[in-house]
Amino acid sequence: MRILILGGGGMVGRKLAERLARDGALGGRPVGHLTLHDVVEPQAPAGAEFPVETLISDFAVPGAADALVASRPDVIFHLAAIVSGEAEADFDKGYRINLDGTRDLFEAIRRIGDGYKPRVVFTSSIAVFGAPYPEAIGDEFFLTPLTSYGTQKAIGELLLADYTRRGFFDGVGIRLPTICVRPGKPNKAASGFFSNIIREPLNGQDAILPVPEDVRHAHASPRSAVNFLIHAATLDGEALGPRRSLTMPSVSVTVAEQIETLRRVAGEGVAGRIRREPDPAIMRMVSGWPRRFDARRAETLGFTAERSFEEIVRAHIDDELGGTWVA
Amino acid sequence: MRILILGGGGMVGRKLAERLARDGALGGRPVGHLTLHDVVEPQAPAGAEFPVETLISDFAVPGAADALVASRPDVIFHLAAIVSGEAEADFDKGYRINLDGTRDLFEAIRRIGDGYKPRVVFTSSIAVFGAPYPEAIGDEFFLTPLTSYGTQKAIGELLLADYTRRGFFDGVGIRLPTICVRPGKPNKAASGFFSNIIREPLNGQDAILPVPEDVRHAHASPRSAVNFLIHAATLDGEALGPRRSLTMPSVSVTVAEQIETLRRVAGEGVAGRIRREPDPAIMRMVSGWPRRFDARRAETLGFTAERSFEEIVRAHIDDELGGTWVA
Repeated sequence: MRILILGGGGMVGRKLAERLARDGALGGRPVGHLTLHDVVEPQAPAGAEFPVETLISDFAVPGAADALVASRPDVIFHLAAIVSGEAEADFDKGYRINLDGTRDLFEAIRRIGDGYKPRVVFTSSIAVFGAPYPEAIGDEFFLTPLTSYGTQKAIGELLLADYTRRGFFDGVGIRLPTICVRPGKPNKAASGFFSNIIREPLNGQDAILPVPEDVRHAHASPRSAVNFLIHAATLDGEALGPRRSLTMPSVSVTVAEQIETLRRVAGEGVAGRIRREPDPAIMRMVSGWPRRFDARRAETLGFTAERSFEEIVRAHIDDELGGTWVA
Repeated sequence: MRILILGGGGMVGRKLAERLARDGALGGRPVGHLTLHDVVEPQAPAGAEFPVETLISDFAVPGAADALVASRPDVIFHLAAIVSGEAEADFDKGYRINLDGTRDLFEAIRRIGDGYKPRVVFTSSIAVFGAPYPEAIGDEFFLTPLTSYGTQKAIGELLLADYTRRGFFDGVGIRLPTICVRPGKPNKAASGFFSNIIREPLNGQDAILPVPEDVRHAHASPRSAVNFLIHAATLDGEALGPRRSLTMPSVSVTVAEQIETLRRVAGEGVAGRIRREPDPAIMRMVSGWPRRFDARRAETLGFTAERSFEEIVRAHIDDELGGTWVA
């Protein structure tokens, strides 16, 4: 089977490629070929026993999407996106990549037109939701994004459903919760602190907490994000019916519970590296974010995530820190 | 004040223009100029005391939208669309007009870029919803369209909200229920029978009822559709917040109640002109349509429709038949 990952250079794309290299198969079928695509050279996973091709292009340039699907991949993971902050700062770029690029990809698949019908896994986001929310956001709550990024993802979901309904491909959209603990350096995303307050203390570094400890949010590990993608690539499309996008499971915790978990797992010394520095701008943004999801549909369809924040912390320690930390 | 109506040649656009000609004003401000736009020559309303310009173009052709907004209308009614059946039959045409055309219009407004910020009234549709539904569809029910037309309208709503949030214009989207009684000849729309079974018998003609009498659906008169548009053009945008599209009020009745109303208003002879000829194809389509809306938000914001199907029948007799019918 042939697999294409758009956005193969990002954190989740890279972990997905590593997982495919490790498994050598997807849904019981051996992987015959993997194409990693991004705007900058994506890193090929080590140890793959199948050919890995890396491709660099702007997929929203005319013709680029046709070139990507010409090899008729059986599964296309569409993870490519301009992220939230940049899509807000650069209106045209966000729409060009997140809307036009996505539509170009869908059109390129449709243009093949000879019965080619790949599984398309589209990563959407909880940014499709906009406050005010119910206490837990259920599977039938409406999409009222409050960012251009969220708008573009919601439009992608609508296109995915319509192209699937028309038989042009077999699409599954997954709304990722906040991925925690993100590996790597602290970044400037407003949501970065949810990861920073776990990752940095475990590295022996101080981390800044810009919000009160009663802030509640929904998380899943990078490992779960990869599990979601694999499951979305292999589940029976018929079981989804016409509603092709799903909110993924997540763990809803307060910041206080995050910190208490870190203390329990790694000790008081580690938890003591968190410095409270309230930031009104971040507090304002976070106050508009979802707190909890009731992802019953995805759970019924077999998507699984961590069940406690402790599992999330332990996944990070195992996957990124070789099982240990700076006490 | 300058007003532009896209889709000014359609039934609702024409009635809106006639209403503006009659009122001479919109929201208390005198109308100084009206532009009616469509792909075929729209009919200028009789008796307007302001200049009426008619324009013919395909508004999804590059540059067409810029020409339309160059005169800086204060209010833009965007009623132009490829209808449901045609958008389903011609995938490319539906997307080109309903999605690209709408986006071109929004971009043309944005491109003016000197603080120009018109009220944009966008007619969406209950086709943004897709079965299965709750018994009454509330204001927070999600959009899962089951047609390309509904998909394109849902995307239009998302763009309208984002362009409004970004300050490019001041948008209000209204989801029209089924308009009943539609004047004119019977048409081939699957929903046509809801109007046909009232209009044709009042004209002394037989009408075919293709579904069982327990079918329930939601209606508003053409007069109410115009009232919705006028109110959407003049209400305080701040009161809407970021959720810019609203389900309009409607009257939910069964076909049996429609027929009983016709009998009460116009007599047994008129109601007797309805012939039952079940059509499985239409029954299948209708079974996926909404039955009832709880349009609380729109009602709170001052949108009003008929409160009974009798008011709808009487509106038709008054507005289209000069107060009388063929007994």
